[in-house]
Amino acid sequence: MVLLTNPRAERVKSVAALVRRSVRSRRGRFVAEGPQAVREAVLHRPESVIDLYVDHEARALNPAVALIAADAEAAGCPVTSVAPPVMAAMADTPTPQGVLAVCSVPGGDPAERLADLLSARPRPRLLVILAAVRDPGNVGTIIRSADAAGADGVLISTDSVDPYHPKCVRATAGSVFHLPILTGLPMDHLVDRLHEGGLRLLAADGSAPRSLQEVDLVTPHAWVLGNEAWGLPESVREQCDDIVSVPIYGHAESLNVATAATLCLYGSATAQRGPHPGRR
Amino acid sequence: MVLLTNPRAERVKSVAALVRRSVRSRRGRFVAEGPQAVREAVLHRPESVIDLYVDHEARALNPAVALIAADAEAAGCPVTSVAPPVMAAMADTPTPQGVLAVCSVPGGDPAERLADLLSARPRPRLLVILAAVRDPGNVGTIIRSADAAGADGVLISTDSVDPYHPKCVRATAGSVFHLPILTGLPMDHLVDRLHEGGLRLLAADGSAPRSLQEVDLVTPHAWVLGNEAWGLPESVREQCDDIVSVPIYGHAESLNVATAATLCLYGSATAQRGPHPGRR
Repeated sequence: MVLLTNPRAERVKSVAALVRRSVRSRRGRFVAEGPQAVREAVLHRPESVIDLYVDHEARALNPAVALIAADAEAAGCPVTSVAPPVMAAMADTPTPQGVLAVCSVPGGDPAERLADLLSARPRPRLLVILAAVRDPGNVGTIIRSADAAGADGVLISTDSVDPYHPKCVRATAGSVFHLPILTGLPMDHLVDRLHEGGLRLLAADGSAPRSLQEVDLVTPHAWVLGNEAWGLPESVREQCDDIVSVPIYGHAESLNVATAATLCLYGSATAQRGPHPGRR
Repeated sequence: MVLLTNPRAERVKSVAALVRRSVRSRRGRFVAEGPQAVREAVLHRPESVIDLYVDHEARALNPAVALIAADAEAAGCPVTSVAPPVMAAMADTPTPQGVLAVCSVPGGDPAERLADLLSARPRPRLLVILAAVRDPGNVGTIIRSADAAGADGVLISTDSVDPYHPKCVRATAGSVFHLPILTGLPMDHLVDRLHEGGLRLLAADGSAPRSLQEVDLVTPHAWVLGNEAWGLPESVREQCDDIVSVPIYGHAESLNVATAATLCLYGSATAQRGPHPGRR
């Protein structure tokens, strides 16, 4: 079996370069690091795994890493053994935990992907739109919560952070491979298509007079979340069908955008599916 | 007015040194950075402000910064003007936004502070215990959500991250000054005193069969949250009165600990106070 041992090899540098947005964008590739993210890639979207790199020492010592590598080989993913210094040179985290995958960003025309999502059967009932959300940890956490709440997709406007940023991928804890993530479309386009698709748009805004418990969360809808510092611009809010706040019981001025999104999404999931999800 | 201009002065280094836990612990001081955190310190806990530093250029240009400095002076907090390079040298963030406060960590014997909190009138109805939560962003976000949910305090076990870590203070968005934060006590002590105080302990655990909607959230209780990677140890779970999961509707294995905590806290707030908080 081939073992990559030179951390300065071109192939290693090429993986490490994916930390930069411009490189990810040009090559349509991103990196998933660590057992949790890589396992979800292999199990849920093996066709997206371009290259899986496994630290040969970790594979020998860590049964979880060995299982992921074996599953990947069984699924036809190309698996390459590397020495620990190669893994360290490829990874964004100081402790990549022995396994890392180069994956393809879902391709195709963004407008067509959105049209496909909106015309899928059964029709989507719960979506999230992120408008200028800028912190990769927040975006990743929202993707994870949207997955947990059983949402049908996360739509990320062109002025938001790239969801394939390493910190964002890490914060999704594998959920980036579980549900459709759409990027590359401006807010106006998203708003128009969702309205045409019959979804109500609910702007989450801490200052809104109507609260989460007072709005219809059963009818298919999309939550619209804005920037961490300035929220949603007026131009977006006025295109929404309702503006909704999460109630504040204490002295906090507002909630973190990811926790607010989670409360909104779970309000919707409970309204649409009841308090008990069916067994998965 | 005195203007500090030398970023290498001892006083400046002394503030910058508070980035280290050992220094914070020895001196009983921490740093709050940026207008939001400093404003909340001045408004809610002016007695905790040891020194407030304001960038004299920001004070001239930014009305929000000027207002905070004026409020601080009116409240009797010592305010010192500094040049921008001094602010940069003191701060943990690359953009401290013109204002920074050195604050005192609430002092006194931790066991006595806990006894005081538990015997306060009205009696506490909703608390959070963090057991070995290690990420400062998560701890800060949980403090912010606990504040938003109107919780009566956050109890942080000795094996968790220091809530006065700069990243944690930042993530609280000022809530660190809004509700009691107790540190310095081990889990066993917290569990025993809360039980004696008549609070039920609810362990949040993704694998528990009983879900958030199935347990009594009206009776006074404390949520117990565990480590990001390994959750709650068996020794803690068996001391809890109930083990409760947040339902998962999609494919995610679990939620981020801060978002799970938020859903639990809001479940409690809604059960105890109804969907509409009274006006603050």
